[in-house]
Amino acid sequence: MNPGDRVRVDRADRTYEGVLLPSSTDERLVVKLEGGYNVGVDREAADVSVLAEDVYEIDGTDSTGPDDEAGSSEIEFDDDLPTISLLSTGGTIASTIDYRTGAVTAQFDAEDVLRAVPDLAGRANYRGRVVANILSENMEPPIWQDLAEAVSEEIAAGADGVVVMHGTDTMQYSASVLSFMLETPVPIVFTGSQRSADRPSSDNVMNAVSAVEAAKSDCAEVLVCMHASESDDVCALHRGTRVRKNHTSRRDAFETVGAEPLGDVDYETEGVSFRRGYRQRDAVDLSIEPDLEEDVELLKFTPGMDPQFLDVVEGSAGVVIEGTGLGHVHTDLIPRIEELIENGTTVVMTSQCLEGRVCDRVYDTGRDLLEAGVIEAGDTLPGTAKVKLMWALANSNDVEEAMGTSLAGEIQERSVPWE
Amino acid sequence: MNPGDRVRVDRADRTYEGVLLPSSTDERLVVKLEGGYNVGVDREAADVSVLAEDVYEIDGTDSTGPDDEAGSSEIEFDDDLPTISLLSTGGTIASTIDYRTGAVTAQFDAEDVLRAVPDLAGRANYRGRVVANILSENMEPPIWQDLAEAVSEEIAAGADGVVVMHGTDTMQYSASVLSFMLETPVPIVFTGSQRSADRPSSDNVMNAVSAVEAAKSDCAEVLVCMHASESDDVCALHRGTRVRKNHTSRRDAFETVGAEPLGDVDYETEGVSFRRGYRQRDAVDLSIEPDLEEDVELLKFTPGMDPQFLDVVEGSAGVVIEGTGLGHVHTDLIPRIEELIENGTTVVMTSQCLEGRVCDRVYDTGRDLLEAGVIEAGDTLPGTAKVKLMWALANSNDVEEAMGTSLAGEIQERSVPWE
Repeated sequence: MNPGDRVRVDRADRTYEGVLLPSSTDERLVVKLEGGYNVGVDREAADVSVLAEDVYEIDGTDSTGPDDEAGSSEIEFDDDLPTISLLSTGGTIASTIDYRTGAVTAQFDAEDVLRAVPDLAGRANYRGRVVANILSENMEPPIWQDLAEAVSEEIAAGADGVVVMHGTDTMQYSASVLSFMLETPVPIVFTGSQRSADRPSSDNVMNAVSAVEAAKSDCAEVLVCMHASESDDVCALHRGTRVRKNHTSRRDAFETVGAEPLGDVDYETEGVSFRRGYRQRDAVDLSIEPDLEEDVELLKFTPGMDPQFLDVVEGSAGVVIEGTGLGHVHTDLIPRIEELIENGTTVVMTSQCLEGRVCDRVYDTGRDLLEAGVIEAGDTLPGTAKVKLMWALANSNDVEEAMGTSLAGEIQERSVPWE
Repeated sequence: MNPGDRVRVDRADRTYEGVLLPSSTDERLVVKLEGGYNVGVDREAADVSVLAEDVYEIDGTDSTGPDDEAGSSEIEFDDDLPTISLLSTGGTIASTIDYRTGAVTAQFDAEDVLRAVPDLAGRANYRGRVVANILSENMEPPIWQDLAEAVSEEIAAGADGVVVMHGTDTMQYSASVLSFMLETPVPIVFTGSQRSADRPSSDNVMNAVSAVEAAKSDCAEVLVCMHASESDDVCALHRGTRVRKNHTSRRDAFETVGAEPLGDVDYETEGVSFRRGYRQRDAVDLSIEPDLEEDVELLKFTPGMDPQFLDVVEGSAGVVIEGTGLGHVHTDLIPRIEELIENGTTVVMTSQCLEGRVCDRVYDTGRDLLEAGVIEAGDTLPGTAKVKLMWALANSNDVEEAMGTSLAGEIQERSVPWE
């Protein structure tokens, strides 16, 4: 049994089939499944049989062996091209690329990238790095911190732009939190795929190519680059703090809430253009503040909500409430919220309407919430407010001031006058 | 001190100013505040002073006294016009109408309606009824049941259509739950106001007029009628189960999610038109199933969520999860969810994407959730799924079947092919 063999792995509860990858230890097998995900299996607990030998050519980590079909064992560094770092966290788009090992923190190089997406050739010099290999619903604050550190290291090492390959489920949360953690002199562009590479309708190639073009642009912000429509013509560039996955399956699921996207990438002309003002390349120096207060929750209020949910957040550092309308909850909950605040929990109000600002000065309920000490987050999206509160509690001396101020485009100018 | 006097009420914690209304008991004062809301005050606990006598003419409940400025003491019933019942639950729009008493269950008649919104004259014969007078963030399942009973009684008494005046914060939840509780042979049209009547930009008149026109139409469904744009030209008619307040303050905040509105009302021509198929007037007989299982929660999953939230719903009858993407949560939560289901809690999956169907057959996480016994709700909106689950647990023999079936338009045909 050797790396590259097609194997079946029988465990007590489940059977996998896939290609055996090289592994750093003999105790653990790493198998690449059909969908592209890698699964790690404890060798002792599994029954493994070889289905076919040597079905897949695995590059040696020393690159001395025979190489892929193109026959080019080295991609030359081109001084005329920018260097783009591709960081992978997992998800459908990452499964396109065959990492040479199943381990997290594995490196991958230009060859791996170009074998997976040949259209990327000639656009940049590439560096690749695996930060995580998870389904994005399993994203957690410590991985955000690893990702921010990795992005920062790549920029410090000279990357002219960074592309983060990420599952689409939680991309908006990750793009938001990195917007707060990092001041960046170069573009940091998240991209992903709503359909895997084995489907005719896959969006992975166009999204990857467009993300690289965006990472070469002069917009030094955290962006999300995904299909702008169901056609393969334009990718939209969304500000990381204002983007939301608004459809479960469409390729153009990602939208900027409450505004047009910041810009777009024309797939045919490769032109990147922006509609509004943005922070330009090299406008700020690289800096990183990756600390997060993890003990922050998001609570969505709906009619009939059990007040016990407020008991769960008792003692928490912070809670973001997704209220109704201008930022309301049942008035019976207000004394309990006041108590939480008196006991040291920071409570921030957002709206489940998603668009528009909360404004708790209009109705009695809102005024009572403000009197209780609730902090308004303007039109910050609830998910963005959650990760911002995690960040602000760990990094800001004045959390109320921070939550009411736009630090990374998360609060928009009032687009609709109140009257 | 008499009804109609302008008074100041000082309580331990707060001072009110407003017009004293007639009250059914001497122990309780009812004061109409500037914003239009009524507040009830325990007489013993309050210090009341008259600021000005007889500032407001209060109609006697026997209608024998002198009447309003128009001098018409009776509005004649017009055989050629349909009869529309106006039910009020409170909210900004209801504050337009001066009820003759501050009590819930108060009646109001055509005169009250036409004094408040003269543009309603000549469109219908009106009956009026106060079901509740609450801020809509305080909406609760028992009030939904009262409202359904009241609507049913009005239809049984011969109303050709019903208009429900409702605060906008939770209108979508109320319209949804009535869609499940009632089979109706006539239109039931919710309307409200995003700006109160004392503002130049108020939307209350156009919304009320358009709702009455919709209530005269042949669409025998539960609808929401609100501004379709920022202009005063067209109101959109949304199916009650698919509508969402998508902006905190705009007059056109309400949108049908994942489709065009079902129809609209042209304010100038008064024409009501529909874009798609709908249930027609008299297609079904009136019936009501108002039972609700109140012990149902909605839980929004976000990265870093404390698993303790699942402990709160332990023993609950049901919980709707607002998952990521196609309907996912962190895989660490799945064993706990399985345990909940084994202990009798019905767990339903929806998506925080809002548009698009959940589909847990695509990725491992989803398949594990299905194996654990989670029920998929198609593209039912999370809030609609919560009230539907409340209803289904009380009225359906097969809750899984019910949650996967469109009972009132809450699950749409697949509008976007999967590939």
